[in-house]
Amino acid sequence: MSVTRPSGFAATGVTAGLKESGKPDLALVFNYGPHSAAAGVFTSNRVQAAPVVWTRQVLRDHALQAVILNSGGANACTGSDGFADTHHTAEAVASALRGAGHHVGPIDVAVCSTGLIGVRLELGKITAAIPELVASLSADGGTAAAAAIMTTDTVTKEAVAERNGWSVGGMAKGAAMLAPGLATMLAVITTDAVVDPTTLSDGLVEAVSLTFDRVDSDGCMSTNDTVLLLSSGASGIEPDPAELISALTQVCDDLARQLVADAEGSSHTITIGVVNAASEDDAVEVARSIARNNLFKCAVFGNDPNWGRVLAAVGTTAATFEPDELDVSFNGVQVCRAGGIGDSRDLVDLTGREVALEIDLHAGDHRARIWTTDLTYEYVRENAEYST
Amino acid sequence: MSVTRPSGFAATGVTAGLKESGKPDLALVFNYGPHSAAAGVFTSNRVQAAPVVWTRQVLRDHALQAVILNSGGANACTGSDGFADTHHTAEAVASALRGAGHHVGPIDVAVCSTGLIGVRLELGKITAAIPELVASLSADGGTAAAAAIMTTDTVTKEAVAERNGWSVGGMAKGAAMLAPGLATMLAVITTDAVVDPTTLSDGLVEAVSLTFDRVDSDGCMSTNDTVLLLSSGASGIEPDPAELISALTQVCDDLARQLVADAEGSSHTITIGVVNAASEDDAVEVARSIARNNLFKCAVFGNDPNWGRVLAAVGTTAATFEPDELDVSFNGVQVCRAGGIGDSRDLVDLTGREVALEIDLHAGDHRARIWTTDLTYEYVRENAEYST
Repeated sequence: MSVTRPSGFAATGVTAGLKESGKPDLALVFNYGPHSAAAGVFTSNRVQAAPVVWTRQVLRDHALQAVILNSGGANACTGSDGFADTHHTAEAVASALRGAGHHVGPIDVAVCSTGLIGVRLELGKITAAIPELVASLSADGGTAAAAAIMTTDTVTKEAVAERNGWSVGGMAKGAAMLAPGLATMLAVITTDAVVDPTTLSDGLVEAVSLTFDRVDSDGCMSTNDTVLLLSSGASGIEPDPAELISALTQVCDDLARQLVADAEGSSHTITIGVVNAASEDDAVEVARSIARNNLFKCAVFGNDPNWGRVLAAVGTTAATFEPDELDVSFNGVQVCRAGGIGDSRDLVDLTGREVALEIDLHAGDHRARIWTTDLTYEYVRENAEYST
Repeated sequence: MSVTRPSGFAATGVTAGLKESGKPDLALVFNYGPHSAAAGVFTSNRVQAAPVVWTRQVLRDHALQAVILNSGGANACTGSDGFADTHHTAEAVASALRGAGHHVGPIDVAVCSTGLIGVRLELGKITAAIPELVASLSADGGTAAAAAIMTTDTVTKEAVAERNGWSVGGMAKGAAMLAPGLATMLAVITTDAVVDPTTLSDGLVEAVSLTFDRVDSDGCMSTNDTVLLLSSGASGIEPDPAELISALTQVCDDLARQLVADAEGSSHTITIGVVNAASEDDAVEVARSIARNNLFKCAVFGNDPNWGRVLAAVGTTAATFEPDELDVSFNGVQVCRAGGIGDSRDLVDLTGREVALEIDLHAGDHRARIWTTDLTYEYVRENAEYST
């Protein structure tokens, strides 16, 4: 399933030995065509990893035939040597694919990396594993590829949207550094629809803006975030652009929810809904201010519907609202009404995984939603120990 | 010492019963004069507690004779009833002081509150304790007052700057929600210098901007932050404005460092110095982006000089810099050079409390410093359990 659900794609995941755990760490997605239109959305961080720089460059012709992804190292802040490592990786993939009878050059190969920043990749292990990687490409290798890109993820993330005669599939990884400007560390989405490059790019940007960009687990933005979309055209069907966006959004939404549900060390998934805002931007700004408030996130970890911390966060924004008109509900209980004390906190049960927070700004008719997680001992433990 | 070091001031702290612990929770600072010039700086949060609204109002005449401060409740998000509670508190203080022979009205009395947001204060306990509070005013009551304003603080925070014939004294409390727009929850500063109200206000704003506003423990901004400065003029000496600012900055700097050293649950005090920035604003923006990065703060908790997370944070700013020119040092070891791998991480020892992080932007000749703390299990525990 996932990236191999649409026709025209093969994928695989193998163990190159980059991870100390000995788990799979190298994935390949290959597009047999007949088309090779592709689009990408990348981190807006100004410090960009070598694979991001490379992949932006090779996407200038709006076409890709393959994506190689490794976990076990981000290849970020590794200078010109690190960029050369990425280039060599793409060369090696193209060479191995040519050996298998495909007409592929290095600029047809995107590279994605995830793991620790500031450490050189063990390039020898990657190039040594590439022949096996290409040889093991399979039309049902989507799940193997999804497994090979995991870092601190505890489960693979895959999604599919079926349409009449065509489909969209996707995989993602990402457990922290989920922040705007791109919420997941890595995602690859495939479709067998026939789509021109402009429609493909516009559709991806729109789908990402409403899904991955609305995830904010810890406010931290990665140097490696990449979402790639590849179209094989193998279905022979050219859907209406709106239909394409709908399917893309469905897959991105599904993957984004899976990312939040598996965010590092979290014990609650929090959906922050802001309603009756003067604009969508206002709603997003307010929701994000809460998603990034450590005191609020600790309170949810403690099963405490601490609406005072919600108001303190909202008060730091420039959104249109009057403090004495704000309503706040936790799981449907309006604990804050008109900026003051509402229904009893004791009516709120936060012991489940899902928390629905709603803030009514009483300032208009726009709304937005941000997904975040709580701040837990386990988050601190994982991120204190990750690189050591 | 502290607020009672300058001539013309008395202070005290008593137990009104607002805290379950039975510890002191009500403080009073009284200015005997002959002058009563005063200035204040308040949270820039748009959701402001009743005592902040009250104190802003009574400071319109640039004069104060007394400040009453309570811990055990923030009186924030408590609506018009909460504002009435603050008003009644000031009335009760003025009345008791009149009973002791002082000519004081309610608009001469500032009110500061700290504690849980969204809960009404037990006004009866406060008014019942005010006669004892006034009766116990003492010329050496500064430390008692500093103790009565503690919440999760583990030690009192007091500071004094001695000058030739005059002095500045101060006390503060604040263990979390230390963020810009004011870094401490509550601080009262006193001086016996003769100062006109404009110089007093300008001096306070300047001193605060370089000290309390450069503390960023968790990026969260309080609804109650207040720094008040009272001048008795009892020394009869009118210092040069620059001398006054120097003494005010010394006291605010001392208190700000004490706040960071005692920030909730922290195990490291981190001084983030940004050098060779194109502007001071750039330097502050870069330093703050790092101070608010949870992944970086967890790494320091784990004694890990994770410069990749530093670069990832810097990359989210709009400051002038080239990614491949950035240098990063932890405790003097340049672990990142020219945006890439520098000296070995193994040379860095982060086992002590103090961590000095320096980022060289190579973009100009401005610099700034932000103080922050690490993100620990204990921070999560205290903030998950605080209100329950």
